[in-house]
Amino acid sequence: MNNFTFCTPTKVIFGKDIEKQIGETIKGYGASRVLIHYGGGSVKKTGLFDKVVNSLESAGLTYVELGGVEPNPKLSFIHKGIELCKKENIDFILAVGGGSVADSSKAIGVGLATGNDPWQYASTGTCPEPNEVFPVGVVLTLAAAGSEMSNSDVITNDTITPWVKQGITSETVRPLVAFMNPENTFTVSKFQTGCGIVDIMMHTMERYFLGVGDCDLTERLAEGLLIAVRDAGRVAIANPEDYEARATLMWASSLSHNDLTGCGKPRYFPVHKLEHPISALHDNISHGAGLSVLFPAWAEFVMKYDTMKFAQLANRLWGVEMNFDHPEKTAKDGIKAMRAYFKEIGMPITMSELGLKPEDYEDIINLTTKNGTAKIKSYIDLGKEEIREIYKLAE
Amino acid sequence: MNNFTFCTPTKVIFGKDIEKQIGETIKGYGASRVLIHYGGGSVKKTGLFDKVVNSLESAGLTYVELGGVEPNPKLSFIHKGIELCKKENIDFILAVGGGSVADSSKAIGVGLATGNDPWQYASTGTCPEPNEVFPVGVVLTLAAAGSEMSNSDVITNDTITPWVKQGITSETVRPLVAFMNPENTFTVSKFQTGCGIVDIMMHTMERYFLGVGDCDLTERLAEGLLIAVRDAGRVAIANPEDYEARATLMWASSLSHNDLTGCGKPRYFPVHKLEHPISALHDNISHGAGLSVLFPAWAEFVMKYDTMKFAQLANRLWGVEMNFDHPEKTAKDGIKAMRAYFKEIGMPITMSELGLKPEDYEDIINLTTKNGTAKIKSYIDLGKEEIREIYKLAE
Repeated sequence: MNNFTFCTPTKVIFGKDIEKQIGETIKGYGASRVLIHYGGGSVKKTGLFDKVVNSLESAGLTYVELGGVEPNPKLSFIHKGIELCKKENIDFILAVGGGSVADSSKAIGVGLATGNDPWQYASTGTCPEPNEVFPVGVVLTLAAAGSEMSNSDVITNDTITPWVKQGITSETVRPLVAFMNPENTFTVSKFQTGCGIVDIMMHTMERYFLGVGDCDLTERLAEGLLIAVRDAGRVAIANPEDYEARATLMWASSLSHNDLTGCGKPRYFPVHKLEHPISALHDNISHGAGLSVLFPAWAEFVMKYDTMKFAQLANRLWGVEMNFDHPEKTAKDGIKAMRAYFKEIGMPITMSELGLKPEDYEDIINLTTKNGTAKIKSYIDLGKEEIREIYKLAE
Repeated sequence: MNNFTFCTPTKVIFGKDIEKQIGETIKGYGASRVLIHYGGGSVKKTGLFDKVVNSLESAGLTYVELGGVEPNPKLSFIHKGIELCKKENIDFILAVGGGSVADSSKAIGVGLATGNDPWQYASTGTCPEPNEVFPVGVVLTLAAAGSEMSNSDVITNDTITPWVKQGITSETVRPLVAFMNPENTFTVSKFQTGCGIVDIMMHTMERYFLGVGDCDLTERLAEGLLIAVRDAGRVAIANPEDYEARATLMWASSLSHNDLTGCGKPRYFPVHKLEHPISALHDNISHGAGLSVLFPAWAEFVMKYDTMKFAQLANRLWGVEMNFDHPEKTAKDGIKAMRAYFKEIGMPITMSELGLKPEDYEDIINLTTKNGTAKIKSYIDLGKEEIREIYKLAE
């Protein structure tokens, strides 16, 4: 295993009725004038927005609201948020929503803390990290991205052509506090629930593979998380108001991306890097849907480089009997079981289900590889040729 | 599942050669004059002490040393530490050792931060929590207590008769930083390694049982941790210098007691409460050895109140086939397997192996129950009669 540093200071306040604690808690972090940042307005329909406002007002806090964050949060809107916060003397940003709202809030925070355009911290593979922190909290309404407890922040630059989707990775973007009431995810659609399940699984599996040497504890924790998500996923899709299943998905979303499941492992995230250009160029494609199509195809393509690890997960997560003489068969059956599970929970598993045709591929591949000048680190480096083959495996 | 709050800000720096980072890291936490607190002197023999000193001096820090912490750290010695720190204007306490040294350091920190005797925060079940923090770091040399990342601090009051062993539970006692190099546990004896394995398993199992409703994710994580510890334990006992096995035990010690495996569960710790009076009255009995004897006996006594949960762990951890018609048989076989494992790793499983005879019981029971006036919360409350029966099951 590799050396590692692990530090997850985000305070998680989890359970029923925890909205009442929001105002006093963030006041404890120095909040007096709050930006309530949210998405398309469903938080107003469900009544959550009012609960948040009541809690802030009970604690004597004032607020300004900025709704309208889109999926794959856009840089131009983040700029708007930064300007609003400056004008209104905001001292705390409260994201009320899912990963996109959290990521938008974190990027606004980077802009305010550093005085720079947040894109400069995301624009290249060797970009500097922000070194100042602006206080951000999250009231979570979607179990998926894990942004509420993570050190990553993915934004889409819509001020350039083609759009580019890229992440800031820094300890400065971990939220101070996350308020997580599973009931606030009861209204999430079956499709978005499925996207979330896939995203959670992928945050865990992207860390699970590509390790060096023994990392048994980290892998066992990852498998435990994946098993719980697998089972809760089925229940939540069948019965969206099952509290315990929603609770499992919500807490798993945080633990899958706060780095617990990556301790001692390297951090490559090849499938995320394959997916981001797809949802950057095709804004209607959900991140989770893209991952659902790409991960099994990537796994098929690289499984020969780490057959025993793929077989191990097939056995422990998908219940495939271990074939010690032919572990590649076990591995392959595991990938088959993964696709079957994704299909069962209503997720796409082919490029055509994403609405992508072979003639769309080259634009995506060019963006992914910076016109053939860059490769994605994986078991083998993935350049144009390899990515084309992975796409074919997803047809 | 219950509502919960989870916040584990302790920074973990884990792996080989991490001692070099100690000085600069704690300087970042404001350290200038450091108390190096340690136990019986093995850290000097192994060369770790010199590495720590070199790292502090390279960062321009000065230090004072206080060795001599005993297992079951004593209040009188903690008082001595508090006086020394005041006299020497210490601004950071660095524990170099295992759980006893960490707990002693944390208690000295409580004394310095609050200006009060730390015992007043541990002396009753309804004691106040300290509300001020003194900076403490841990250089860990024993995978067992999990004190390096936990919010608990167990000390023994040797200024009264009989001695009383009790814990402070407070977020103020979580160390700021833990430096964890598995190589620093290579010299731990087989017996102490076994005690550590038991302690880690017990911190997980004490949280695993006594839950209400569904807590699948927390239980799956706990099972993953237990499986990894079970396997690494065997390897570390057989080959004390196996880095990966020592790494698993070390990281598991932190994760088993930082509350990850308790999210959504109540916190009762009945077997710890049964054990503490034993090692308080019999200072030669290791905490882990006491737990090894008591936990299986407690489990036998209470399994009828939660048969399916005991059967579940028997199946998932010990590989006992699930008998759905007679889950009590599965549960019982699981307890048998647990005892067999403890025996395999060299731990005692009977009271007589601890050196305790039936005529010793009443003194312990009187201390445990405050002369029959108090009971331990478990599936049923454990008073004098119930504790006597548990002891009998451990004969």
